[in-house]
Amino acid sequence: MTEAVSVARPNGAFGSDHPIGVVVLGMGNVGTEVVRILRDNADDLRQRVGAPLALRGVAVRRLDVDRGIPAELLTTDAESLVTRPDVDLVIEVMGGIDPARSLITAALNAGKSVVTANKALLADYTGELAAAAERSRADLYFEAAVAGAIPVVRPLIQSLSGDRVNRVVGIVNGTTNFILSAMDETGADYAETLAEATRLGYAEADPTADVEGYDAAAKAAILASLAFHTRVTAADVYREGISRISAEDLETAAAVGCTVKLLAICERVPAGPGEPGPKEGGKERISVRVYPALIPRKHPLSSVNGAFNAIVVEADNAGRLMFYGQGAGGAPTAAAVMGDLVMAARNKFYSGRAPGESVYAELPIAPIGDTPTRYHVNLQVADRIGVLQAVAGEFAKHGVSISTVRQEGHGAGARLVVVTHHAEESALADTVAALAELESVTSVTSVLRLEGTEE
Amino acid sequence: MTEAVSVARPNGAFGSDHPIGVVVLGMGNVGTEVVRILRDNADDLRQRVGAPLALRGVAVRRLDVDRGIPAELLTTDAESLVTRPDVDLVIEVMGGIDPARSLITAALNAGKSVVTANKALLADYTGELAAAAERSRADLYFEAAVAGAIPVVRPLIQSLSGDRVNRVVGIVNGTTNFILSAMDETGADYAETLAEATRLGYAEADPTADVEGYDAAAKAAILASLAFHTRVTAADVYREGISRISAEDLETAAAVGCTVKLLAICERVPAGPGEPGPKEGGKERISVRVYPALIPRKHPLSSVNGAFNAIVVEADNAGRLMFYGQGAGGAPTAAAVMGDLVMAARNKFYSGRAPGESVYAELPIAPIGDTPTRYHVNLQVADRIGVLQAVAGEFAKHGVSISTVRQEGHGAGARLVVVTHHAEESALADTVAALAELESVTSVTSVLRLEGTEE
Repeated sequence: MTEAVSVARPNGAFGSDHPIGVVVLGMGNVGTEVVRILRDNADDLRQRVGAPLALRGVAVRRLDVDRGIPAELLTTDAESLVTRPDVDLVIEVMGGIDPARSLITAALNAGKSVVTANKALLADYTGELAAAAERSRADLYFEAAVAGAIPVVRPLIQSLSGDRVNRVVGIVNGTTNFILSAMDETGADYAETLAEATRLGYAEADPTADVEGYDAAAKAAILASLAFHTRVTAADVYREGISRISAEDLETAAAVGCTVKLLAICERVPAGPGEPGPKEGGKERISVRVYPALIPRKHPLSSVNGAFNAIVVEADNAGRLMFYGQGAGGAPTAAAVMGDLVMAARNKFYSGRAPGESVYAELPIAPIGDTPTRYHVNLQVADRIGVLQAVAGEFAKHGVSISTVRQEGHGAGARLVVVTHHAEESALADTVAALAELESVTSVTSVLRLEGTEE
Repeated sequence: MTEAVSVARPNGAFGSDHPIGVVVLGMGNVGTEVVRILRDNADDLRQRVGAPLALRGVAVRRLDVDRGIPAELLTTDAESLVTRPDVDLVIEVMGGIDPARSLITAALNAGKSVVTANKALLADYTGELAAAAERSRADLYFEAAVAGAIPVVRPLIQSLSGDRVNRVVGIVNGTTNFILSAMDETGADYAETLAEATRLGYAEADPTADVEGYDAAAKAAILASLAFHTRVTAADVYREGISRISAEDLETAAAVGCTVKLLAICERVPAGPGEPGPKEGGKERISVRVYPALIPRKHPLSSVNGAFNAIVVEADNAGRLMFYGQGAGGAPTAAAVMGDLVMAARNKFYSGRAPGESVYAELPIAPIGDTPTRYHVNLQVADRIGVLQAVAGEFAKHGVSISTVRQEGHGAGARLVVVTHHAEESALADTVAALAELESVTSVTSVLRLEGTEE
């Protein structure tokens, strides 16, 4: 323990006393925590960067709120802030597309490195922003944009850069996971549980972005882009939310040893139905989708409850990895921002660079219609002989292979629960339409996808 | 999806056709996989690096083995290989201290960047190697040294660099986890299970490094160094192996809703017994230790079975994170090596640098004697009135607070199972010595630590 610590030698314009100027755009939950950590951990941050970080300003929407920081640091003029000569790094935690997009672009064009937590912006504009960063040799970091504190962006970009990722499956939205976990636990219905989540602050006043899967879809687009070295935007992601999930769905799931989770799934799939898959040397496409699905209770994602997030990554050589932690909230998200900030500041100090965008693979997106998944189909049926045969016949006719069928109840309450093998969405949709026409089928109560099983 | 991909512009000596020269030291399980991936994934690697990777040579101990690669690439002269002018990157996967230490040093001194999976070497010589890397502005990467494919080194160095890590607890040795999982499942004893693990290839012919905790201790030293920005060597790590764990210990654990795991624990602790902790503004030390301990079955680490590894990291802002995956084996370890290789190659290509060693905190190591943990003490006792009082008296006398006591069996089989609150190792050791002297105590059957409970 006596050896001298080697002295860091910057090769850029910065000496170790010359501070690195930082500005923060937005002072909501995350911005407030970032400003706090910059102050509380100043000594550690200085040691880790090699130079002190100096907060040059914070852009806010209103100046008439006491935010516990010197008033002269606050400004509503974000545009001037991001191009100030004494600013090296811009932290964007305001969210939304505009003006975040133009501010980040202006910052990058001025050679400032940017750390952002803005998943909606990144999902659609990473290409444009990365190109701006590349032109001025600045950094664009965004670990906080996916799964809050959980390091998953950096592992995908760096740790797995020598491997071939085949699949990323994650629970990446805390609000919906809180709601589904609570429904699973209490048996309450969706509307009631959403109201409770809103009351507790787990859901926003307008919960649409979360419950309809838009937030998860943005994250899925980012994850897929990183995992497969291709460009995926939010519009490429098939998306269903959780607002149609009922207490009965959770009950059905429980009856077959499953629970329901909103999953973001990114995977390599064959070039077309029936064609050889990527593993068999065939051409490949990718499927990126967000929807609620049954998963077995023994699956590692099934025990991820409440506001927690988890992401499973499957790669050729690394095998199956799982990352787990707090996916949202001020401090956890700020932790991810701060890690990026230290790296971006070190790069300024040592004239380094973060890895840029990697989209060389240019993989086509498979439409949901020919993306095979397993299904769990719940039917209200007439309680008479021949029903099972008629139902099975419709599945067979549409080329959907049945794994198991269970008959439940009697008389008016008679039900059939059918679990399929992997089937294409379009074939299943046709089957369901045909089942609904059957005289012996009273109604198709629910159709839920089933993920996470070894078939 | 139509936007042009920005063209990478190297700022170093490399053009995009000029290959980056790579050599591999050692062709065991990991080296063989690294060479295979370099060949199989050459196109992807070229795209991700920006230039092709060219395998210049592989250092092996014997030339008379067919390794499926051109004979002219093989050499026993590792020393010449690591300083060749057409070599930019050295991958060290031979293991052991010598000659790995001198070869890596020679490579770094010659300006080559080094990727190593050598935990034993790093645990003792990171300071020396990092200083050599710093002098010649080369990179030293070692993700593969801890927990195989699981990205934990990079998250600690980079993702958590803006946070304050308080605790790292991990299952970081696959052999011992395989043995303990099997003992838990089958009820078999240690010797029998070790024999089975050896037969299946999960344990080496001489299993000492694994079963006595040396391997886990080296990894704990590396994790603690990174987590707390201080230098920790293997000698600083308190270490107990699993060779004394009995079938009865697993049975006892199961009876109280626990299992037994070999844990690597790194945490901040108060400067001295009774002093305020780091959280309360007191001075701090760190405790780094490896030992088998009971953990509750509901703890996330308890379900990490077989050869899998997992690491839980607790930080001020990020909260609790968990990383899970394959901790050993050729391909998973090679996946981590390859991720480092791509980053090191990119740095060569763009004249970047990996973060260097960060040991500014210089925290003292707390001796195991005053590191508080909870204990589970199993006593064979005389079946008569007053025993519990006598036993409880000894605990009280030594200042060890009891959480629960259970009496089991009758007559000659009468037992007491005592679970303590947090107690210092030294106080517990004194208590156990005194208990052994009690007339009413036949024997102290086992003393196991208990981790992972909220007290």
